[in-house]
Amino acid sequence: MDYNRVFNQAIDRLHAEGRYRVFIDILRNKGAYPNARCFAGHNGPKPITVWCSNDYLAMGQHPKVISAMEEALHNVGAGSGGTRNIGGNTHYHVDLEAELADLHGKDGALLFTSGYVSNEATLATLAKVLPGCIVFSDELNHASMIAGIRNSGCEKRVWRHNDLAHLEELLAAEDEEVPKLIAFESVYSMDGDVADIAAICDLADKYNALTYCDEVHAVGMYGARGGGITERDGVADRVTIIEGTLGKAFGVMGGYIAASQTIVDVIRSYAPGFIFTTSLSPVLVAGVLASVRHLKASSEERDAQQAAAATLKAMLTEAGLPVMATTTHIVPLMIGDPVKAKKVSDILLAEYGVYVQPINYPTVPRGTERLRFTPGPTHSVEMMRELVDALSEIWSRIELRKAA
Amino acid sequence: MDYNRVFNQAIDRLHAEGRYRVFIDILRNKGAYPNARCFAGHNGPKPITVWCSNDYLAMGQHPKVISAMEEALHNVGAGSGGTRNIGGNTHYHVDLEAELADLHGKDGALLFTSGYVSNEATLATLAKVLPGCIVFSDELNHASMIAGIRNSGCEKRVWRHNDLAHLEELLAAEDEEVPKLIAFESVYSMDGDVADIAAICDLADKYNALTYCDEVHAVGMYGARGGGITERDGVADRVTIIEGTLGKAFGVMGGYIAASQTIVDVIRSYAPGFIFTTSLSPVLVAGVLASVRHLKASSEERDAQQAAAATLKAMLTEAGLPVMATTTHIVPLMIGDPVKAKKVSDILLAEYGVYVQPINYPTVPRGTERLRFTPGPTHSVEMMRELVDALSEIWSRIELRKAA
Repeated sequence: MDYNRVFNQAIDRLHAEGRYRVFIDILRNKGAYPNARCFAGHNGPKPITVWCSNDYLAMGQHPKVISAMEEALHNVGAGSGGTRNIGGNTHYHVDLEAELADLHGKDGALLFTSGYVSNEATLATLAKVLPGCIVFSDELNHASMIAGIRNSGCEKRVWRHNDLAHLEELLAAEDEEVPKLIAFESVYSMDGDVADIAAICDLADKYNALTYCDEVHAVGMYGARGGGITERDGVADRVTIIEGTLGKAFGVMGGYIAASQTIVDVIRSYAPGFIFTTSLSPVLVAGVLASVRHLKASSEERDAQQAAAATLKAMLTEAGLPVMATTTHIVPLMIGDPVKAKKVSDILLAEYGVYVQPINYPTVPRGTERLRFTPGPTHSVEMMRELVDALSEIWSRIELRKAA
Repeated sequence: MDYNRVFNQAIDRLHAEGRYRVFIDILRNKGAYPNARCFAGHNGPKPITVWCSNDYLAMGQHPKVISAMEEALHNVGAGSGGTRNIGGNTHYHVDLEAELADLHGKDGALLFTSGYVSNEATLATLAKVLPGCIVFSDELNHASMIAGIRNSGCEKRVWRHNDLAHLEELLAAEDEEVPKLIAFESVYSMDGDVADIAAICDLADKYNALTYCDEVHAVGMYGARGGGITERDGVADRVTIIEGTLGKAFGVMGGYIAASQTIVDVIRSYAPGFIFTTSLSPVLVAGVLASVRHLKASSEERDAQQAAAATLKAMLTEAGLPVMATTTHIVPLMIGDPVKAKKVSDILLAEYGVYVQPINYPTVPRGTERLRFTPGPTHSVEMMRELVDALSEIWSRIELRKAA
């Protein structure tokens, strides 16, 4: 048994498919986002513009967030020092859970160290607690949801993306008395389309199923208080569990669920991924508290982000570039080949100081490799103009397909 | 199907067994650790002494750590804004991985959002990449290792805790050509005993197995530079993968592995729990960098912690309290009943301002419920005297068994 041979073969496969990932080494310039510095492969840092961050509303740079974190740092120190049960339950955690429960109109909320962990731990535990549970999962659900469903050991039925007739067909085929859980996202982050949550809830009512909605690409950004698509569509009370992240629109790090107090108590008490891990640093939690409170009261960042996305989509369309049609803030540009996607990204960084990472398998299906832009409130029209001009030049240079 | 009935039954089971967990709501007083404030059930915060934190060396309060975090907060902002691959790879992450690789004398290191995730993601991925791999797991391995092994879908053989004859028996029973991975901890955190790593490596050599050593309760605290038991015992180069945490002795949050560059590259490229999650906040990473660098150069905190643990163990023994024999910094006091363990903990908090959480199933086996004290460099002899006097009074009051 030659271990190194097996490991090297695993890496070689990635190179052969053109999807070996190279991490770009950057530092943002605080207060000047999307400006940043890039380190790798240069003599000293080189100035760049970041076009692929999930800090959608630039809240990671917001003065209220920074000063809340600084205050917590000086008030209580760096880390929590333990699990939530053993020494790591700070007053910040308690306050933030109350704030997030209120954001979604639920009785309770529960913090996790990441959105990934919140999905994995909640889905795995929920499905295990319900004997014989069948999980109905949208085919484009995030890797963390798939992991949670797999790790629950339950039966799974996969429905075609956003195809509710298919979902109903699968629900109707099962025994009425069997516990059922429908798991889906509100905004699908790589295509930028949205689930019809009200219609999913109708099916859940009809077939007595629980619903689990991942709102990580929507919380902070949709709804009058940033409660996500469930708030915008007025259906938050119909969804059993709403899951969100603290690392994208809220600008910091961590994940959570909001649900009834009973469900929160079950997950809190049974999920290994919640129980056996050091809790979020109080410094992060303090920053998120400031961010959530700000975005509950202010729609300025949300409106500016939607405007920026609409402007960039219009400019890309006008230039004849193959921007994918979306109804959300996500702006994907289809390339359809991992090697070409990486090449465009490399040229943008090296020649234009534009940082946008190529998105390849397994994040998106093979053959749908793309660039994915996330314009926010601080991306100016001038930056967009430079970006579109650069893309047009590269599209001609390496003879990529333009929009149909 | 009545979902609420099932959920309520799950909670009722915990109450019936006396192991329903109540989180104590606290805030530390920065610069005065182990002093803290307790909120729950009081009119306003009440001063307490923390005796159960895993911030073993009080590095979460260290001025170097605090100022490094403050600097990063003002330099780059709150969160990383993305996964390591898409926008979230900062220069701090690159520097810290180099620092951790050096700490363990390995070619590479890889950061995760927590120690839990590092164990789960690495073990699940490693065992999956090696076709037909069998994992040999110490029976007291942490929940996160068990989760990773289970989620790999591999065959598992469990060896009796620290019983190397049993491990060899299990290794010898398998086909020579099958990939094998031996997974264990250096310091077992609830009993405070230590694995014979050199002997495990001898067996790994003999049977051509890889080794995976969880050092979360040892990094920063053992070895001349804080490289853990593997450094203290001079065997770091013999262990294939060393896993550690940034949330205990290093005082902040996060986890990591250190290994060959090839293995790091495989995990980096294939582990969903690494790929699909927002990376650690650069603020945390900056704090850890300062902490690791400080503890590489300074043994003062390590020595003071060992001295504090030895003093407390001697004082408990002298008072006839049933302190468990350990060779490490861990000081467990056996109670053997979940209801009594919680009662002692409740009295300590309410009447003496001493905060130590009861440890119950599933963290320890049923019937071995205990209190677990973590004295550190800032716990004074006066605090220890008060603690031991309080325990002696409570032991008499509720008629608990004294030491044999």
